Amino acid sequence: MNTYLDCIPCFLKQALHAARLATEDEMIHAEVMRSVLKEMTVIDPCLPPPAIATRIYGIIREISGIEDPYRKDKEAWNSFVLQLYPRLKSLIVHSPKPFETALRLAIAGNIIDFGPRSHISEEHVHKTIIRAFTRKVAGDINEFANAIISAQKILYIGDNAGEIVFDRLFIEQLPREKIIFSVRGAPVINDATMADAEAVGMTKIVKVIDNGSDAPGTILEKCSEDFRRHLAEADLVIAKGQGNYESLSGMDPVTGKIYFIFMVKCRVVADHIGLDIGSLALNKG
Amino acid sequence: MNTYLDCIPCFLKQALHAARLATEDEMIHAEVMRSVLKEMTVIDPCLPPPAIATRIYGIIREISGIEDPYRKDKEAWNSFVLQLYPRLKSLIVHSPKPFETALRLAIAGNIIDFGPRSHISEEHVHKTIIRAFTRKVAGDINEFANAIISAQKILYIGDNAGEIVFDRLFIEQLPREKIIFSVRGAPVINDATMADAEAVGMTKIVKVIDNGSDAPGTILEKCSEDFRRHLAEADLVIAKGQGNYESLSGMDPVTGKIYFIFMVKCRVVADHIGLDIGSLALNKG
Repeated sequence: MNTYLDCIPCFLKQALHAARLATEDEMIHAEVMRSVLKEMTVIDPCLPPPAIATRIYGIIREISGIEDPYRKDKEAWNSFVLQLYPRLKSLIVHSPKPFETALRLAIAGNIIDFGPRSHISEEHVHKTIIRAFTRKVAGDINEFANAIISAQKILYIGDNAGEIVFDRLFIEQLPREKIIFSVRGAPVINDATMADAEAVGMTKIVKVIDNGSDAPGTILEKCSEDFRRHLAEADLVIAKGQGNYESLSGMDPVTGKIYFIFMVKCRVVADHIGLDIGSLALNKG
Repeated sequence: MNTYLDCIPCFLKQALHAARLATEDEMIHAEVMRSVLKEMTVIDPCLPPPAIATRIYGIIREISGIEDPYRKDKEAWNSFVLQLYPRLKSLIVHSPKPFETALRLAIAGNIIDFGPRSHISEEHVHKTIIRAFTRKVAGDINEFANAIISAQKILYIGDNAGEIVFDRLFIEQLPREKIIFSVRGAPVINDATMADAEAVGMTKIVKVIDNGSDAPGTILEKCSEDFRRHLAEADLVIAKGQGNYESLSGMDPVTGKIYFIFMVKCRVVADHIGLDIGSLALNKG
């Protein structure tokens, strides 16, 4: 998916938020904004938004000297969703449709994304969970279940911290032995890295790899050879979140074997996929 | 009021919206965005936001060749609020507190501002009117009424098209012979110009002047001598909208004799004035 002009104000808003998380020094905030503005004047619109975002968060790291401005937020969100885990687990196991319930929760968990919104409240997550039980899932749940049952090797590409607990709940309903879960290779926004996979116990239930990249999505040419080998070998890929949709949708190596699952959170992605903001997307790519 | 880093994403969003209103040519949209991005790298944060916005809307006019991208929107909003006029008038004249009711409506009308939001629906205006009757007015209504009664010459600085009908309803409750109403000297965003004052009948009830400037606010050094003379001679100035607040708040020539009345619509202004977004501001400057 290309980067649209509408992405520019959003990138600048994200950059300012991340710069303020990194440091209280207003001179640095201004320097970050100037650098990001300059970067925006030369962006290639044929690149997907996560490729541009990679550069922006690189600028923030370079100027602020802070490797991971979202570290505390990520830890707080992991802890918060882990507290919800027993109740969510109970909802799933007592549901007449445990697979569908776990899937709806996995999509709801995708609300914990500091890209489109800089502030997410716990109340917002609660409301999103409730809505996820009444809204239509935009996609064929039975076909998706069948693809999972039929697959030999599944690569599940994770997205954000906090959300990763919802992914764990979903994966616990799936044939785990077939699944490899992947995280980002380095911190970017609130995307989950190996530290988050370990913190929420994902590493105890499935094999977890990192993709070797610091993009908030999956930019294949920036990923490690090991990750790309797993992607090639998988006969089913499950990709969580908008960033993975933006970067993998329409990409040759995954066409026909990928399902994107996410909550639609911005106008650009909504228009691209043809769904409203707030939709629960289950999209076969 | 200074321009904050938070204003930058907002300016870029506004620029894109205005460019799209001006033309469907996507090459021009991209050129506008590149030019505005470059302009943003060299802005002086000591200038108020409307001074920066003047330059941005100038860029859009230069590149698109369209003098007034919001002309149709302004006409549509004038017509829409004129349709509401009889019902709003009836609300005021049958109210036990006609001055307060007209004031609340004048503040509610300030929602029709395409700066902070690029899309305002008629439903949104209806809801804002209803809310304006239940929310606290943040300011001393009695003191304001007394200032109006006591003044010899009042300059009422208008803000937007559509909203100007609410201003007319308010002014009809005031001693009109003391009032001069001012509009912008040239089109910018959806700010009211002389054409709007004529379209909604403002020119029939009070003397209307233009300020000689194309800023979406009141940048004194860019205003005509005539306007500045009226400002100096007035013993009371009523300034509508965020743009006038941003540009006149704390300015020597109006200090102690100005009331700002507006709806708080963005975080930057909310923090500056110490009120929540959505507040009905009646602020003595």
